Formats: sequence, structure tokens, C-alpha cells
Amino acid sequence: MQRTWTTDLAAHTGGTVLLKGWLHHFRRLSRVSFLLLRDGRGVVQVVVDSAESVATLAALHHEAVIEIEGDVVAVAQAPNGVEVRARIVRVLVAPPEEPPVDLSRRELQVQLPTLLDHAPVTLRHPRQRAAFRLADAAMAGFRASLRSRDFVEIQTPKIVAAATEGGANVFMVDYFGRPTYLAQSPQFYKQTMVGVFERVFEVGPVFRAEPHDTQRHVNEYVSLDAEFGFIDDHRTVMVLLRDVLADMLGTMAADGRGALAELAIDLPVVPASIPCVHFTEAQKLITAETGEDLSGEPDLAPAHESLLGAWAMRETGSDFLFVTGYPMVKRPFYTHPDPERPTFSNSFDLLFRGVELVTGGQRLHRYDDYLAALGHAGHDAAPFEGYLQAFRHGMPPHGGFAIGLERLLARVTGASNIREVTLFPRDLGRVTP
Amino acid sequence: MQRTWTTDLAAHTGGTVLLKGWLHHFRRLSRVSFLLLRDGRGVVQVVVDSAESVATLAALHHEAVIEIEGDVVAVAQAPNGVEVRARIVRVLVAPPEEPPVDLSRRELQVQLPTLLDHAPVTLRHPRQRAAFRLADAAMAGFRASLRSRDFVEIQTPKIVAAATEGGANVFMVDYFGRPTYLAQSPQFYKQTMVGVFERVFEVGPVFRAEPHDTQRHVNEYVSLDAEFGFIDDHRTVMVLLRDVLADMLGTMAADGRGALAELAIDLPVVPASIPCVHFTEAQKLITAETGEDLSGEPDLAPAHESLLGAWAMRETGSDFLFVTGYPMVKRPFYTHPDPERPTFSNSFDLLFRGVELVTGGQRLHRYDDYLAALGHAGHDAAPFEGYLQAFRHGMPPHGGFAIGLERLLARVTGASNIREVTLFPRDLGRVTP
Repeated sequence: MQRTWTTDLAAHTGGTVLLKGWLHHFRRLSRVSFLLLRDGRGVVQVVVDSAESVATLAALHHEAVIEIEGDVVAVAQAPNGVEVRARIVRVLVAPPEEPPVDLSRRELQVQLPTLLDHAPVTLRHPRQRAAFRLADAAMAGFRASLRSRDFVEIQTPKIVAAATEGGANVFMVDYFGRPTYLAQSPQFYKQTMVGVFERVFEVGPVFRAEPHDTQRHVNEYVSLDAEFGFIDDHRTVMVLLRDVLADMLGTMAADGRGALAELAIDLPVVPASIPCVHFTEAQKLITAETGEDLSGEPDLAPAHESLLGAWAMRETGSDFLFVTGYPMVKRPFYTHPDPERPTFSNSFDLLFRGVELVTGGQRLHRYDDYLAALGHAGHDAAPFEGYLQAFRHGMPPHGGFAIGLERLLARVTGASNIREVTLFPRDLGRVTP
Repeated sequence: MQRTWTTDLAAHTGGTVLLKGWLHHFRRLSRVSFLLLRDGRGVVQVVVDSAESVATLAALHHEAVIEIEGDVVAVAQAPNGVEVRARIVRVLVAPPEEPPVDLSRRELQVQLPTLLDHAPVTLRHPRQRAAFRLADAAMAGFRASLRSRDFVEIQTPKIVAAATEGGANVFMVDYFGRPTYLAQSPQFYKQTMVGVFERVFEVGPVFRAEPHDTQRHVNEYVSLDAEFGFIDDHRTVMVLLRDVLADMLGTMAADGRGALAELAIDLPVVPASIPCVHFTEAQKLITAETGEDLSGEPDLAPAHESLLGAWAMRETGSDFLFVTGYPMVKRPFYTHPDPERPTFSNSFDLLFRGVELVTGGQRLHRYDDYLAALGHAGHDAAPFEGYLQAFRHGMPPHGGFAIGLERLLARVTGASNIREVTLFPRDLGRVTP
């Protein structure tokens, strides 16, 4: 008999099925006993009445691997409208001990270190794993959206000789005795590939040796990167980002329906046109609300972003807000200036509910501009020689963006700490499991 | 006017289009001049007759970024059946110097170091980039195939505290003063995630500090990994692999049609059932052909694999051949033994035209078996504690495989050196560009 997923049982009502999965919970009563069986997709209640099967199950630890053959019965008060009456119970693997946490509780309610130390087990909890189902859907939506717009997927090297942002906060790798770095982003390579395919995207790990121990930082995360040529300026990039985000949330709603129900959350709606303020206007809005004097300030503090998020919701009903034109001094050397106000940039941040979610913008594309920008930033051009080749030989106006997968998940699920939605997080104190 | 891709021109015959791209080649004749314009997808011939436009183009270096407005005309002898008669020529970016190679030659015909040193430019050559279009299609096909079979995509950490294969050939990372490694494979994490989702896949970089300077090795490559639970044994994995490979080649044929034409290659056909020999039978076949005494040999040499590939083609007409049951001594500690002949394993290699393309098999799933296997291999269990948690708390029989993306591309395109089909390869001597 073919196995049936617990989430597909309604279609088999009245029939006999084979279930495979884990002993999620077992409650032995005097006349009849109830098993919760969990598989890779869901949980179902199984009624067990044979004395032999009850004895078998009662002797097992939680997380035993089992098979059940049984009949699917419609039961109005059951969680999925069905339950299974067991005919045969088979034990595939009897684990040697009890799990460190009770996975059958509605919420795990354990401290973060416990959650992370025991991730191989705690990730099995239906609510815990739901976020990673959404991650799967987010990646699938990102790729499908860009692929439908003629973008080509690339995988660029993570061991690199030059640091993207100029040398700070990089992890060093001993590469056959040579010092190299882990890539902080695919920035240089995705730009280079605009010269090849015009439109490229990448989903992959990035590494930041930032010594910050906050709820928003991990030191390795998944970056969803896009870059493309023949743009007018950063606004062309913002239009694409809006559409890609809408597609991603659409895929998350469709493919992640079960996960969203498990987490009891609704996804945000991306407006047809995301509201947008220039950095200087954003500062004026903040000054108007708080009285703070921000003149000369080159960046926004998290509290300011939060305030802008509230303003956008109040004034436009949007969870999203673009802030454009950040001062050049706070942006990386490859950032394109605003031709009309060259101390400001053709870059943007996208805030989601008052927190930065995406960074992007137009990049420099002329070789001479790169030489000048590197000189201005105090960098020697030699380590960037490979990168500079692309610009020496014709690069169109181009730009792109990077979405932090885990940051998106944290915002969407309401997780208070990004580690809760990072698969096996790496931070200042943690490299296991 | 919206830009039209060079590959979509036939549908615009008789109309006026806007082209964007690079000055691939320019040939000035006395009466009329011919421009080859290359964009992210193809190349088209543009006829230029205005004296002003001819002078503009003649003054540019190759790889200048340009726009053309012109009329699409059917021309039977043109490569795509169409050419464009230029009305307007606009220069977006005039590069400061000539490229280091002539991109307009049918084949680049440069030495490998030149090809790789100048990758930001040489990748723009239509034949060079074709392989990376196939890479895009291969990844898309891999994901679509597994997704249609209920597999969930994961992204697992690349900075790890324990080496997958027990400590040899790893790159060390200085992680805030702690020694850590770059992951040699997602093996431990994909197995762990079988406990969560049952069926998982990952596309991502892996890092091997193998000090080999061969045509088959690079030190960072892209691994297409799958792992799933509730299998019978390694044969369940082989059936899945066969179907996934067929789907991948199907996607490569459909999405990579232009690239296949550019490379003038046909894709292999995956037989409905891939022929299969046990390791011991393979040895007998080799002995019968060569007279070599292989008794006691625990592995196959590349020359043996090549011979087996020729045998499979001769006897069955198949480009593919499974070799199963490799001796346990040559396989990693997590390999499941053959229950009936425990010195042999439930593992396999898939040979393609006589070269190993995929490795896979059934893994151990019982906690006690892991403790015994680690002890047998002389490993201390402590560094594997995070991994072992999964098995201490119920793991089903499971297995999986890993396909090396670049190795697949090399085989399919006939590249003699894997570096030719690796995007910015890293080897013993190279970490740039």
C-alpha cells in the first residue's frame, strides 16, 4: 500500500490508508487510546483499541518511528475533520530515550538556548518547522518571479580574495596557506554577471563577522540577490523589487497555507505602488514628530525607522515604505550618486513595519568612476582588479537589491529574535548544532 | 519603446524595435557596414548605412554599450533568419580600452589561464556563457523535480564545528577566535532535516581542501543534494535519482535550447531503468577484460570506471551505469551496510560515460549504530553531539545523493577541464577573479 500524508487524509475518508511518521503523543485511556502521529507535513489523531497495539505504543518513547494501517473516518470535532482507526501498528525505530522537550505541547515554551541547543528535535515541532516551510516558499517565489522576467540564476564563489565592503567584519579562511575571506555578499560577482546575462539572481549564504549580539543579527544568513542592467536609475530597481516581493508573498500564501495556519498569521499586502520618501524628507518627518535636530546626521537610527514605519501605516495604510537618497558617506563605494545632488545616493532601503528589510540601488557603471570612488574611499585598486575588469570593458547602467531571508521570515512571523527563524544559527557564541 | 531581446526578433519581422547590448563586432565596408550586437541572450546582425552612425561605431572599442533603433527584416541567409537595419545608434558607455580577447571569434581559442584570468570578459563569449545557462536550467530542473515530489528546500550552515568526513581536507575559518570549518557537504544537516520534513533538498556551495591539481577537481563547487526518509534501502534512492536526472535533462533541453545549439551538443537520454552492477561483479567484468587481479581492492580506479562505462554502452546502450555495494571500508562512517554482506555497503555511484557523477546511498538511522560506527572509525563522538541528537530521538530509514553541478556540466558539454564550466573557479592556485 502507498503511504498517505496526514494532510491528505480527507480525500481518503471511508478508505484504508498507510501512515508513516513519528509518535508525537500517546494517551492511554481505559477503553480506547489516542495516538497523535506526526509526519513531514502534519499531525493526525489515531484511535487505537487493540490491547496488543496499545501495549506496544505505551512502551515506546516519544519520537519513535512507526507505521499505521487504518481506516479514515470523518469526525466533525477532529482537527482536520478526520481521524484514523488503527488496524495495524508497526514500530520501525524505538528510540533509546525521551526527547529533551515535549513536542506535543501547542507551543514549546522553552528558552531560546534550549530551543537552539536541541534544534534537531525542536525543529520537529509543528510551529517551529512552519517558519522553514515559509522559507522554502519564499525562495521558490523569489526564483519564479525573477525567472519569469528573464533573470538567470548564478552561484558565485564564497571564498574570495577581496572583501566586498572594504575589509571590515570579514571571516578569514586559511586557503592553502593564503589569507582569503568568506564573501559578505555576492555583490561583485552579481554585478560582473550583468555584463554576461544582463539579469541575474542568486540565493546563497553570506557571512558577516559583525561582533553584534542583538536580536536582529546572525553571522551567516541566506541572501536573496538580484542585479540587472539597462536601468534608468534606482527607481527601476524599486519597481522590480515591489513586483518580486508581491510574487514572493503570493507563493508563500499558496504553498505555505498550512504553515500560515499553524502560525496563525496573515501575510502583509504589498501595495501596487509602495510609498516612498527621500532621506531628507524622512528626517524632516522625524524632526516634526520628535523635535530632534537631525541636520548633518548621515543615517537613520532604528528608532527613526520605526517611527517612519508608523507614519507610513498611518498616512498610507502601507506596511512597506521606501526611503531613498541616503547620503553617499554611509553607502558602499560602488553606490551611484544622485546626479542632481551628488552628496546623496541613488540607493534605497525598504522598511517593513519600521524595520529595514531590503537594501538596494543603482551602482556605478563607468570604469573611471570606480577608480575615483575607490581612491575616495582610501582603497588600493589592486585587490579589486578582477572586479574592475567588468567596468573597463563596458557595463550598462545597472542596479539591484538583496533581501535577507531570515529577516523577512522574522518580520512576517513576528519572531522576536531572528535566531528563531534561522536554520541552525551562527552567532557570536554558537556554531553548533 | 520597449526593448526587444535579440532572440525574439523573428516575431517582430516588418516592425521597428529597440535593441540594447554590447558592440560585439563591427565591420566597416565602403557602402554599408555590419554591426554584431550582443545582448544577454543572443547576437544579431545590424546593418548600418548612415555615415554618422558608422563614424560613431568605428570610433568605439569592442564591448561598448549601445542602443539601436531599427527595422527587422527577414534575411534567409542571416543566422536567425532576420537582421536589423539601423535607424538610430546611441552610445551608452564607451569603454576606455580594447578587451583582452576577441569575443567575436566563433571559439575563443585561448589558453585556460587567460580564459580564467579574464573571466569577467571571457564569460561574455556566447559559447562560454552557454554552459552557465545550462547550469541555470539544471538547478531549476533539480528543484522542480524534487518539489513535485513533496521535497522541501533548505539552506544549511556552511560554517560548521565538525567535519563531515572526519577531519581531512577541510578549510579552517577563524570564527571569532574559535577554529571552525567550511562545510564539505550538507550531509549532517540534510539528514537531520529528514527528521523534520522527511524529504529535503539543498543547492549550495561545498568546500573541499583537497590538494589535487587535476582536470576534475575544484576546491569549491555547487552541490545538488537530496535526502529522504522511509526508504526500503539504497535502491529506493536510485529510483528517485533516475527520475530526478531525467527531469533535469528535460529542463535543460527545454530551457537551454539556445545554449545547446550554441554548444552544438545533444543531451544524453536517461534510460527508464539505469543498468546496475554490484561492485564485486564490476571487478569481475574488469578482470575478464584486462586480466588484472582486483581481489582485495576496495575501490575502483578512474580507468576501471571508464572501462565499465564502455561496457554499459556496449551491452545496454546506456550512458549511465549504477555501481552498488562499494566496500564499507571506503565509505564514510554514516553509510548503511548491506544487511546480508556487511562488509559491503548499501551505497552507489552513478557513472556517466565512465566517470563518477553522483554518489549516494542509504545511511545508518539507529543511534547505537552511529555510536558503533564512530568508534569503529576512530572518531570521538563529542564533536558529533548535535548530529547524533537526531538519531537518539527517532530517525526513519533514509538515504540520499549529491550531484556535483560542475561535474555534470563538464560531462554534458564535453569540457576537458572542470574549470571551464565553473563560474570563477577556486583551485590550488586561484582565488581570483
